[in-house]
Amino acid sequence: MSKIVVKFGGTSVANTERISNAARLIKEKISKGHQVAVVVSAMAGVTNDLVKKSKEIDEKFDLQEYDALLASGEQATSALFSGALKKLGIKSRSWQAWQIPIVTEGFHSNSRIVSIETERLNKYMNEGEVPVIPGFQGITSEMRLSTLGRGGSDASAVALAKCLGADYCEIYTDVDGVYTTNPAINPKAKKIEKISYEEMLEMASLGAKVMQSYSVQNAMMNNVDIYVRSTFTNNEGTKITSDQKISYENVVSGVAYSKDDAKITLEGVDDRPGVAANIFEPLYKNNINVDMIVQNISLDQKKTDVTFTIKREDLKKSIELLNKQPNLKFEKISFDEKVAKVSIIGAGMITHPGVAFRMFKSLSENNINIMIISTSEIKISVLINEDNTQKAVVALHSEFKLD
Amino acid sequence: MSKIVVKFGGTSVANTERISNAARLIKEKISKGHQVAVVVSAMAGVTNDLVKKSKEIDEKFDLQEYDALLASGEQATSALFSGALKKLGIKSRSWQAWQIPIVTEGFHSNSRIVSIETERLNKYMNEGEVPVIPGFQGITSEMRLSTLGRGGSDASAVALAKCLGADYCEIYTDVDGVYTTNPAINPKAKKIEKISYEEMLEMASLGAKVMQSYSVQNAMMNNVDIYVRSTFTNNEGTKITSDQKISYENVVSGVAYSKDDAKITLEGVDDRPGVAANIFEPLYKNNINVDMIVQNISLDQKKTDVTFTIKREDLKKSIELLNKQPNLKFEKISFDEKVAKVSIIGAGMITHPGVAFRMFKSLSENNINIMIISTSEIKISVLINEDNTQKAVVALHSEFKLD
Repeated sequence: MSKIVVKFGGTSVANTERISNAARLIKEKISKGHQVAVVVSAMAGVTNDLVKKSKEIDEKFDLQEYDALLASGEQATSALFSGALKKLGIKSRSWQAWQIPIVTEGFHSNSRIVSIETERLNKYMNEGEVPVIPGFQGITSEMRLSTLGRGGSDASAVALAKCLGADYCEIYTDVDGVYTTNPAINPKAKKIEKISYEEMLEMASLGAKVMQSYSVQNAMMNNVDIYVRSTFTNNEGTKITSDQKISYENVVSGVAYSKDDAKITLEGVDDRPGVAANIFEPLYKNNINVDMIVQNISLDQKKTDVTFTIKREDLKKSIELLNKQPNLKFEKISFDEKVAKVSIIGAGMITHPGVAFRMFKSLSENNINIMIISTSEIKISVLINEDNTQKAVVALHSEFKLD
Repeated sequence: MSKIVVKFGGTSVANTERISNAARLIKEKISKGHQVAVVVSAMAGVTNDLVKKSKEIDEKFDLQEYDALLASGEQATSALFSGALKKLGIKSRSWQAWQIPIVTEGFHSNSRIVSIETERLNKYMNEGEVPVIPGFQGITSEMRLSTLGRGGSDASAVALAKCLGADYCEIYTDVDGVYTTNPAINPKAKKIEKISYEEMLEMASLGAKVMQSYSVQNAMMNNVDIYVRSTFTNNEGTKITSDQKISYENVVSGVAYSKDDAKITLEGVDDRPGVAANIFEPLYKNNINVDMIVQNISLDQKKTDVTFTIKREDLKKSIELLNKQPNLKFEKISFDEKVAKVSIIGAGMITHPGVAFRMFKSLSENNINIMIISTSEIKISVLINEDNTQKAVVALHSEFKLD
């Protein structure tokens, strides 16, 4: 018998038929003797519709009311889901965040869970009943409704799993797990059976949209095992867990890519202390995230070139900001919008030398030019021409024996 | 300076444009120095959609979850409305029922407000801020969400007006007041400037769908003045108040009618004590509402005829129930589906004799046959052939100088 927190995403509860199906999944678990707490998202489309309405009223809609507005979406799902469980003869009730309570702190619309009162919930579950909890929300210490930001229902599920002392957390979504790369661009992609938190984080930030990074971090910090599974198949899914629990057969676990980057180069920048800060200060202050950075070695110690990548949508604003930044002198600013970042990820690569070499060789053999390289302990990323994305992914997937 | 509770119905907040318009109405009142609390319904269509979803999952959906589900509708409107007020520079926040709290008792899906904690609300309003409160809901003493039944947002507004000690309550809806009769069948119908609670109750139960009877009763018991107005015009609306505050120029205030009645006659029923109870017991037990009843005077003290009216939709079931009722003997059962009830209503008629005579004479002059008569202190109703409804309404409207 296990104690499980099960979370259903928006597509898994998109209509009443799917809600009833999801409720049957819970009934199966209960009939196997498991204790289950359910966390639900808003029905697919509902949150976007509410956000749209708020923007129609005010482009800068009040954030406290934004939270009260959005919280209504998961509230409705929690009631429908609990009703569906009762229809199947399962004892259940919805527990709203203020009834538990789930207390958050931080900014409205982007809060963090700081505590969950679990005594009554645990008692309730010990009696064999199934609490259904709206994800993505909590209340502040001032008793106002708060929300956790996009993907916040995952965060709710992980926090509940930790506070309830659950054996694991299941995330039901519309994909059946984490893949070695995007099957849409490489049909040889395979589902990963187990992946470490760290690898998952690298995958997530690179566009594997299975779970939000914040929730994976939180699961890692609290050692909560996560299973990502599809509501629409009976497939096994992917287990996200500590790397100590994984035996690495492959050095590389997956190949990720992102296609929404842009590259900016500043040529002829003074090569003196403080210049990098001068470049990135206006971007930081305007919430523009800088990813890869390369500074050329300056031979004459006087001038250098700095190249970095940002999200493509921030390109125009970044150039404006750099052009009007005081104390920043450069000879020329250039940019390239047609770039893509391709990465290989694997907790195994720390102990396997030569991984970078194999990567660069494989790309070279495919006539793919590398613009920037950046490395971490479990990831190597290269910036290439966007047109080569698929070719690079297929080549690396094969090179590292993921096919 | 007045203290006002202003309630907006579903059509008045049907989309974000209307919510912004309604918020401007509040801004006008604030700029005149009034203190205002706002009560909102769910956006038009939202509640019906949620009810439909609950029935898709379970025809007998759990009532506690039904309440948690439906309450989400007004919660969303309250947040949107408060955001719209802030956009206009008005200090405001949404106050959910559990934040106030508004405490209810009675059955889930059909609760009554028993208390509203107003100390914090009053303090908030004294600081010039506008609370926006979701109508139709409260919490039980067990901290579960509860709802008040259809039309419940009116009940919330009236209860708040009473508990906050408001000067009056404004109900914004899609009609601009209460009319002397339905303008659709008599173009000479006029808007009533003032109407007593009692008259309004008689009008409401006869199909003037401006306000639910329960809320009018509650306003009457607590002496809360109500203004019914349209969000879509600047017209004055109708004031619903105590009859002491009205000077009656006309004996009759309005002519109402309902066209969804049916008549059943039982002929040759034993004329002995207990027979009426025998007839109406099965109807009562099946929630069938009997309206007008006539028992003919029995000349031979042995057999009599009983005629009564019910809602047309209950006709078939009523006949079935009567036919299989034990201990009930009659010679013949007959029915008429093509009947209508026409009523004249007026608190002034108590002190004016001859009103009934004038009514019957007017109908007779128009060749309209009366099947049943029923009278109360402020109302006289007659059952007639449905085809004569419009002719009767026009004649009575003219007879009692309402044109």
